[in-house]
Amino acid sequence: MNIPFKTIHDPIYGFIELPKGIILDLLEHPFYQRLRRISQLGTVQYVYLGAVHSRFNHTIGALHLMQQAIGTLRRKGIAISDEEAEAVSIAILLHDVGHCPFSHSLEYQLMNVHHEELSVLLMEQLNAAMGGRLSMALSIFRNEYPKPFLYQLVSSQLDMDRLDYLTRDSYFTGVYEGKVGYERILKMLNVHNDELVIELKGIYSVEKFLIARRLMYWQVYLHKAVACASRMLSNVIKRARFLAMQQGETFAQLPPALNFFLQRQITTEHLQNERTAILQQFVQLDDSDIWYALKVFAQHNDKVLAYLSKGLLERRLLKTEQHAAPVSDDMLQTKRQAVMQEFGISEADSAYLVFAGKEANRAYDANKQEIYILLNDGTTQPISAWSEHNIQPREVVKHYICYPKHNF
Amino acid sequence: MNIPFKTIHDPIYGFIELPKGIILDLLEHPFYQRLRRISQLGTVQYVYLGAVHSRFNHTIGALHLMQQAIGTLRRKGIAISDEEAEAVSIAILLHDVGHCPFSHSLEYQLMNVHHEELSVLLMEQLNAAMGGRLSMALSIFRNEYPKPFLYQLVSSQLDMDRLDYLTRDSYFTGVYEGKVGYERILKMLNVHNDELVIELKGIYSVEKFLIARRLMYWQVYLHKAVACASRMLSNVIKRARFLAMQQGETFAQLPPALNFFLQRQITTEHLQNERTAILQQFVQLDDSDIWYALKVFAQHNDKVLAYLSKGLLERRLLKTEQHAAPVSDDMLQTKRQAVMQEFGISEADSAYLVFAGKEANRAYDANKQEIYILLNDGTTQPISAWSEHNIQPREVVKHYICYPKHNF
Amino acid sequence: MNIPFKTIHDPIYGFIELPKGIILDLLEHPFYQRLRRISQLGTVQYVYLGAVHSRFNHTIGALHLMQQAIGTLRRKGIAISDEEAEAVSIAILLHDVGHCPFSHSLEYQLMNVHHEELSVLLMEQLNAAMGGRLSMALSIFRNEYPKPFLYQLVSSQLDMDRLDYLTRDSYFTGVYEGKVGYERILKMLNVHNDELVIELKGIYSVEKFLIARRLMYWQVYLHKAVACASRMLSNVIKRARFLAMQQGETFAQLPPALNFFLQRQITTEHLQNERTAILQQFVQLDDSDIWYALKVFAQHNDKVLAYLSKGLLERRLLKTEQHAAPVSDDMLQTKRQAVMQEFGISEADSAYLVFAGKEANRAYDANKQEIYILLNDGTTQPISAWSEHNIQPREVVKHYICYPKHNF
Amino acid sequence: MNIPFKTIHDPIYGFIELPKGIILDLLEHPFYQRLRRISQLGTVQYVYLGAVHSRFNHTIGALHLMQQAIGTLRRKGIAISDEEAEAVSIAILLHDVGHCPFSHSLEYQLMNVHHEELSVLLMEQLNAAMGGRLSMALSIFRNEYPKPFLYQLVSSQLDMDRLDYLTRDSYFTGVYEGKVGYERILKMLNVHNDELVIELKGIYSVEKFLIARRLMYWQVYLHKAVACASRMLSNVIKRARFLAMQQGETFAQLPPALNFFLQRQITTEHLQNERTAILQQFVQLDDSDIWYALKVFAQHNDKVLAYLSKGLLERRLLKTEQHAAPVSDDMLQTKRQAVMQEFGISEADSAYLVFAGKEANRAYDANKQEIYILLNDGTTQPISAWSEHNIQPREVVKHYICYPKHNF
Repeated sequence: MNIPFKTIHDPIYGFIELPKGIILDLLEHPFYQRLRRISQLGTVQYVYLGAVHSRFNHTIGALHLMQQAIGTLRRKGIAISDEEAEAVSIAILLHDVGHCPFSHSLEYQLMNVHHEELSVLLMEQLNAAMGGRLSMALSIFRNEYPKPFLYQLVSSQLDMDRLDYLTRDSYFTGVYEGKVGYERILKMLNVHNDELVIELKGIYSVEKFLIARRLMYWQVYLHKAVACASRMLSNVIKRARFLAMQQGETFAQLPPALNFFLQRQITTEHLQNERTAILQQFVQLDDSDIWYALKVFAQHNDKVLAYLSKGLLERRLLKTEQHAAPVSDDMLQTKRQAVMQEFGISEADSAYLVFAGKEANRAYDANKQEIYILLNDGTTQPISAWSEHNIQPREVVKHYICYPKHNF
Repeated sequence: MNIPFKTIHDPIYGFIELPKGIILDLLEHPFYQRLRRISQLGTVQYVYLGAVHSRFNHTIGALHLMQQAIGTLRRKGIAISDEEAEAVSIAILLHDVGHCPFSHSLEYQLMNVHHEELSVLLMEQLNAAMGGRLSMALSIFRNEYPKPFLYQLVSSQLDMDRLDYLTRDSYFTGVYEGKVGYERILKMLNVHNDELVIELKGIYSVEKFLIARRLMYWQVYLHKAVACASRMLSNVIKRARFLAMQQGETFAQLPPALNFFLQRQITTEHLQNERTAILQQFVQLDDSDIWYALKVFAQHNDKVLAYLSKGLLERRLLKTEQHAAPVSDDMLQTKRQAVMQEFGISEADSAYLVFAGKEANRAYDANKQEIYILLNDGTTQPISAWSEHNIQPREVVKHYICYPKHNF
Repeated sequence: MNIPFKTIHDPIYGFIELPKGIILDLLEHPFYQRLRRISQLGTVQYVYLGAVHSRFNHTIGALHLMQQAIGTLRRKGIAISDEEAEAVSIAILLHDVGHCPFSHSLEYQLMNVHHEELSVLLMEQLNAAMGGRLSMALSIFRNEYPKPFLYQLVSSQLDMDRLDYLTRDSYFTGVYEGKVGYERILKMLNVHNDELVIELKGIYSVEKFLIARRLMYWQVYLHKAVACASRMLSNVIKRARFLAMQQGETFAQLPPALNFFLQRQITTEHLQNERTAILQQFVQLDDSDIWYALKVFAQHNDKVLAYLSKGLLERRLLKTEQHAAPVSDDMLQTKRQAVMQEFGISEADSAYLVFAGKEANRAYDANKQEIYILLNDGTTQPISAWSEHNIQPREVVKHYICYPKHNF
Repeated sequence: MNIPFKTIHDPIYGFIELPKGIILDLLEHPFYQRLRRISQLGTVQYVYLGAVHSRFNHTIGALHLMQQAIGTLRRKGIAISDEEAEAVSIAILLHDVGHCPFSHSLEYQLMNVHHEELSVLLMEQLNAAMGGRLSMALSIFRNEYPKPFLYQLVSSQLDMDRLDYLTRDSYFTGVYEGKVGYERILKMLNVHNDELVIELKGIYSVEKFLIARRLMYWQVYLHKAVACASRMLSNVIKRARFLAMQQGETFAQLPPALNFFLQRQITTEHLQNERTAILQQFVQLDDSDIWYALKVFAQHNDKVLAYLSKGLLERRLLKTEQHAAPVSDDMLQTKRQAVMQEFGISEADSAYLVFAGKEANRAYDANKQEIYILLNDGTTQPISAWSEHNIQPREVVKHYICYPKHNF
């Protein structure tokens, strides 16, 4: 028997079949294997014990859903060539390859660059190395390919990325409010004028999906302790960079690749000129470097750096208070004064330990490209016009302030 | 409202209630928080993508089951004082605190010591620091306490540890053959002559539990690729220690605590004399040090060390062949010769890359203390005498040989 | 061992513990055992194959949730005496005992009486027979008891009835959009000024619950084929009664108890005078009488009765068209004319086969007693004021017309 | 859109696609629609509240698994023509069409005939009516078709029937010990020399399946209260027939089709001569006739008939004692004497109320056609030779005696 696929075990979908050939080659590439060591949800694990799953697992899951979607569409008579099927599979497989350690928790911090920009750069590098075999995938990923529904399967308000991450994050957190009827939604996908649409019978599943997403945002992704830990982690990087760039700290014990990003603040502009050198350092990094760095920093004699790092290692998070209105400067100032005294630090330094912020979420945005419903008469309508439900609730903003409960 | 417990989110059991007081204090201790960064299943994640859950999560889960078990037994009239309930809860919470990074995958390798011995040493240290408040927990954990059923809840062939890890490992691997009816088993627990027993109505659930355990061993814990990766990881440590102790390699880039264990081979005897110093280093270590070390080693100029480390980083595992009989010296020799040539290494070095081994599993061992069934007439019988099922299948041994598919 | 409860197997909650004493006595009473043969969802089984579960199972499930709720509230310090706990358990156990065969599908048809009115009458009869031991339960059920939260546990917008039926109907239909986090909601219940409230942490679970309920209404309870089958069944009863009362049909083959309700049209008024006689007949009836009657009717020489009955036996439902606006008289008239011709029946008779109707659903009604949220500062707010979600969507009405696709 | 299938909602598999054409025609036939009203598990509902699912649901589920199996085998290159696929689908759809009310609980009682014999007769009748379009299906069902693996998909120790019923019965009873990894098993099916085999990787899933089956037998199908209720129901039929045939009782109130089978004892021989007449009566019957009859019988003046019927209506089952050895005549005699006195009935009559029996189960029978494992080298081995598990445990026999607890 020469079976044309390799099977891999997923906790949610069971056996996933990975087609041999370029898909499997990409999956075995070090760029992609690195995602095994990047947690999907960064600091969410501080609140949801089980949420330690990897980007690796998520993107393989999204690939699996993409294969199901392609199968469904083809059975309904939508023309998708083998080359297109492979290209859209590559695009979903690699859409997150540019994530930094701790995913969104450190995005823009290690480098001031969006992860998709890095994904594109890494895909281009792979494309060059593989003789242009990723060109169509890149074209789809940039939404330049003539059949927009292929792009929409990768990135839209109802894409395979979202279907997988809600399903998966719900599974690993145990927040079943986020569970999504992905099987039903997949079966209801269709294409109309080259755009991805959902058949009318699937409207309740889509509504449920949009609500599940909103609930996951508030219960998980934007949970106040999760947000606080992310800010603490950002401040660790910011503080370490401050020490490196302003005070000449060399951090001899740190992994060189991490040090590389602490000794300078890299932006999109740098990537244009030093792309290869920067990416070479970037692909060395994963969560283990951050955890290891926190252990080094916790012993450092800079009080701010040590306090935040120890707090993250031992889960002694800052206290987080939520407010309906923005936190006043007065309140911030009062808290900072107290911390300056207790820790014996400057006002500038106290801002690393006492800070305010906000979280906002809009589950569905009718100003972006809408989800379209395919009616029984063959016409389509945007879901916001159709659903009896108020599909687009008013945007909610929650303000918070974080500060140390006590020194330790 | 002054609620006497803190709730924590578990993906399997939902809300877990953690009693405030010593239990919560221990949970927040750095020794215990370190378990967040120790994977429960080590190299199993190479085969089962989702199996990246932590010892932290497992032991909190086992604590939860212990609380359920205490509740059930008390409702059936078994006397368990509040002090005993707390002590047995502490014992289960800390039973794995002595695990090294990657849990069983590196057990006996970093130190030649069993993890329970280390758990006891760390519990003693905590006990000293907390004025003897863990004394009863230690007495239970060592099976010196007068009510043996308390020990059996922590450690026996049907303990809270096993109930949780089968449930949890099944959830995170997705191997649902390992799923266990823990709710049903918990409800069927009882005590007879101070020994833990299971009521007759629960016999099928126990049978199912024993079978699930056997299937998990073969499908997960002893999976040939898992075993191979564990051996590769062990050989990395062994090789690094060889380089350090025989060839004066200092590994300047490594975390000092890891280096501490590479520059010497620590055994139980050392622990008697240098206990404090050794434990201080030990509690610094978690999985991140190993992942980081693999990245350092992958760049090392020692071919063996670099090959194994790179293999583990990029999941290029050695090829593993299973055999019904032990692997012959001839076969081993032939493979080693080939590797010596291909890699240009000595015979001694080739043994790190080509090696044989075996895995054995006996799901239930009637020679150990048996599981006893409480019959309707109030008498008990060992399950091996009662079950129509052959509860104790013949021991199965599987032999294997691992060797490089190719150099890279 | 003298265990004070009997365990029973529920597919959803596992072992349910039924306290010995009056609860178990009531459960074994023929009035209650009859619910084994009353389907929870009537004609839903025509669309959802698995939805054949009984009222018996639902009410035992609701009892189980009530026991959990009492436990949670007591742990939070709410005073609930043993007598009150028993009474509220009886109230939930018997709240549906007055359902007729096929539950809501035939409500008001066999008798023109609401099922709760019949539940009260049967509870009174039981109370008389048991020396007044149900008096407090009746007082709670009628919301006359001083602690309103007990009534609210039985009947409110967040009661144990709804928690169980959404959970259960979701399980048996497989429409997982209706799945409800009952465990989480139960743990978040509290009492404030003797009113049932939900703690702030549970707000997302309650939102999810309200949405789940709305989705279940549209996807299951008000599904157009379900509604059509219910109307067909109603028309069978109406037609049979017409034949009996207008044309002297005696239906010798029918079960006498069913015949009793066909030979007259009983209303609330009759119940006041002939209560005992009517109830005696009523408790004889269950789904089997209806199924058997359909087989008898399918052979009847009345075309209308036979057509509808055969249609229900062989699932040849009328065609149902949905419309956004009410169905016009013109359309109705046209369809009826066609049927008159095809079947050779009068205009009056054609109205049994061609009819229009509407379904409306409002998931949450802020005009009824609201669900109150207990905020962290100890005050409460109605959920409609608190939730960022539009908890009360505009009422949606769907109109439909049913007519025969063809004669058979 | 002209979609070539109709979707139907299954609680376990979600959307099931039913191909339009003969499959859908058969599904809509009254013979098949009747299965809606036949409970899959008969008297199991007395112990497991949820187990009220129908044969209709089971056989549609088995059809779904068959379609999956065909898809898997075709993807592995096994030649299955469209005609064969349709024929094997028909065979599985109709394999249970000959079940009587209450399925196995009344098998051999209404008629002394096995249900598969009746299935064949009804399929032949359908075949005649449909111009021979079921001929290939019949050939497969009788194992006369040249490709035995098609028959084995319908009926063998690892067929689609068993895969569905274990999955489904486990779901509706909530006895999750019976849950089966059907997806995994389906993916591991293959064909070798025209025989159905399972690939080596699936061996643990098959082991688990065999164990699950054994546990379901003891926990569900042969549960002592289930067995007792089945015997009670059989005795009701037996007693009613005795009254009809020996004492001229005419049972005017009973459904005529049921009366037909009470006034005589039909065997295979009768079916040869009066096939059409008997089948015509048979297809009228479903569970509702039995429930209705129990209500009629409960009012009968024959003490035995009334006692058993009332017991079944109100779940007052006989007391069942289990014994390791066969029940002695002495014990039986003693109990019967007591009952004769208490009820004032003859010794012959007492045998309806006091009786002994036994249940035996052998999960896997290596004497029947074995399940074969396809090894990696392309050869096959019977699972009994391969598994380290004792796949065929010793046959266990449990003896029981049933008798009235008290008169009522």
